[in-house]
Amino acid sequence: MTWMVTGGAGFIGAHVVRAMLAGGQQVVVFDDLSTGSADKVPAGVPLVTGSVLDRGALDAAIRDHGVTGVVHIAGKKQVGESVERPLHYYKENVTGLEVLLESMVAGGVDRLVFSSSAAVYGMPDVDLVTEQTPCAPMSPYGETKLIGEWLIHAAARAHGLRCASLRYFNVAGAASPELADAGVFNLIPMVFERLEAGESPRIFGDDYATPDGTCVRDYIHVEDIASAHLAAARRLQDAEPGTDLTLNIGRGEGSSVREMVDRILKVTDNGAVTAEVTARRPGDPARVVAGADRIREELGWSARFGLDEMIESAWQGWRLRHP
Amino acid sequence: MTWMVTGGAGFIGAHVVRAMLAGGQQVVVFDDLSTGSADKVPAGVPLVTGSVLDRGALDAAIRDHGVTGVVHIAGKKQVGESVERPLHYYKENVTGLEVLLESMVAGGVDRLVFSSSAAVYGMPDVDLVTEQTPCAPMSPYGETKLIGEWLIHAAARAHGLRCASLRYFNVAGAASPELADAGVFNLIPMVFERLEAGESPRIFGDDYATPDGTCVRDYIHVEDIASAHLAAARRLQDAEPGTDLTLNIGRGEGSSVREMVDRILKVTDNGAVTAEVTARRPGDPARVVAGADRIREELGWSARFGLDEMIESAWQGWRLRHP
Repeated sequence: MTWMVTGGAGFIGAHVVRAMLAGGQQVVVFDDLSTGSADKVPAGVPLVTGSVLDRGALDAAIRDHGVTGVVHIAGKKQVGESVERPLHYYKENVTGLEVLLESMVAGGVDRLVFSSSAAVYGMPDVDLVTEQTPCAPMSPYGETKLIGEWLIHAAARAHGLRCASLRYFNVAGAASPELADAGVFNLIPMVFERLEAGESPRIFGDDYATPDGTCVRDYIHVEDIASAHLAAARRLQDAEPGTDLTLNIGRGEGSSVREMVDRILKVTDNGAVTAEVTARRPGDPARVVAGADRIREELGWSARFGLDEMIESAWQGWRLRHP
Repeated sequence: MTWMVTGGAGFIGAHVVRAMLAGGQQVVVFDDLSTGSADKVPAGVPLVTGSVLDRGALDAAIRDHGVTGVVHIAGKKQVGESVERPLHYYKENVTGLEVLLESMVAGGVDRLVFSSSAAVYGMPDVDLVTEQTPCAPMSPYGETKLIGEWLIHAAARAHGLRCASLRYFNVAGAASPELADAGVFNLIPMVFERLEAGESPRIFGDDYATPDGTCVRDYIHVEDIASAHLAAARRLQDAEPGTDLTLNIGRGEGSSVREMVDRILKVTDNGAVTAEVTARRPGDPARVVAGADRIREELGWSARFGLDEMIESAWQGWRLRHP
């Protein structure tokens, strides 16, 4: 098969491309380079510069490269920005997927792996979030991911596609320093940024109903995320038409913000620094930890990397960009 | 104010246009005429022929006609078709709304009345469906209506719009024979069609947990639907930026399919005909009846017409097209 990876020049996409190649798959990258960069695309992998809103560009890429499956990672992913610019998020994430599916159906491409998110769950009031936990997204970003799953579900049924929606929990780490995430929207790079500015890392609230009072999340290494995409792609290769999997990608282990900050301070040799506790941020659920049974059963996949490997690899990437 | 009614050349839209005119509002119709027809647009009301997917056409209509508010009725509305053609429904109903909102924001148009549907509730297990009843749509059509509400909610917040989403229950009847619905997707015209073919009307299942075993619905006259749009438009005129109302439009009274069929047979002088009971249709909830308190409180609106007026007026329309 030849897999077209949309958003393949971005942080997660670049890792998925490498995992797919290492797994022996043919890959072509489709990316509008709005946030991704061409130098993240490995030598020998074709890069088509285009938007998923551009039906003609999609049709041409599918035809020219003999695409037989799509891994759709392109999309906008900042929760806060989605509140400010909901129309932009719906256009890029919902209309973009709709146009992609049209192009796939027209081109006879019938396998799709989709980047969904734990944001579809909103504020879950359960110990472990399973794929049966009711979805109640709290932001336009989370809405667009749930809408994407609905659209894929309907299209799989109507057009006999084989699809997998992968709900990412908290992605961290990097396979190599130059592939690290350049954004500072997640806990680990946010702490790095504070340290670089000579400021104390911040913890947003320590009065949650959790063991140490700080929020608990399920952090997962981007290399594990990437290997889950390969496993999903392989699973779809032999799947029946209409197959439509929805799977959490997490480790099934919770880590508190306090625990993470302490680990980050240790890994970065900032043991003398202490974190500052500030007010809660609105919309932060107390605990979001994946139930990871279904993906193990469906794909035989489970996470290999731990917290220190995530933090250490992210730190190498940070130091590369901030020498 | 000048209200642009999208879908204003269709069945419900034509009634809304008349109600808005009667209420002293300026109106312009925007319709792609894919299912509507120009002869439903009253003399003196400008008709712009265009699709809500066409940003340029929307921008021009808003500018040329000094539009200050939009009543968005355009959209695809057949549940069964939406299962077969989900991409088409998402494009027309979701992307269409997204493009419309972009055009409104760019043009400074900040008031919107949106056609939603009781289909957002799916299979509600309650006596009266209120706006707080959890939404769980059962079809791509119902999904696109719920998604539209989400998008409007986010856009109202981000851009200070004033919006009202009106969840229609079972629309029936006509203001005059030539304005009657030409489709046969609802109970009343389906019975007419069977009678015309010399066949017994069908009742899909009489083993539901309802008083007479047949499904119970909340039927509402299209003239009542139309007057609710006028009331919503007036309410938005003086509303604060960010206002975002979600309102059921129903009578708050349940009628069983058996009761409706008997009434239809009586009104059409077919008292000797008996209905035939066949198997349930998949996806039909036992009972969907509106709680209509909120719309009365918010808009001072309640339904004026009853079942016989719906059936009689629909029958006049049917006879006009089938003399």
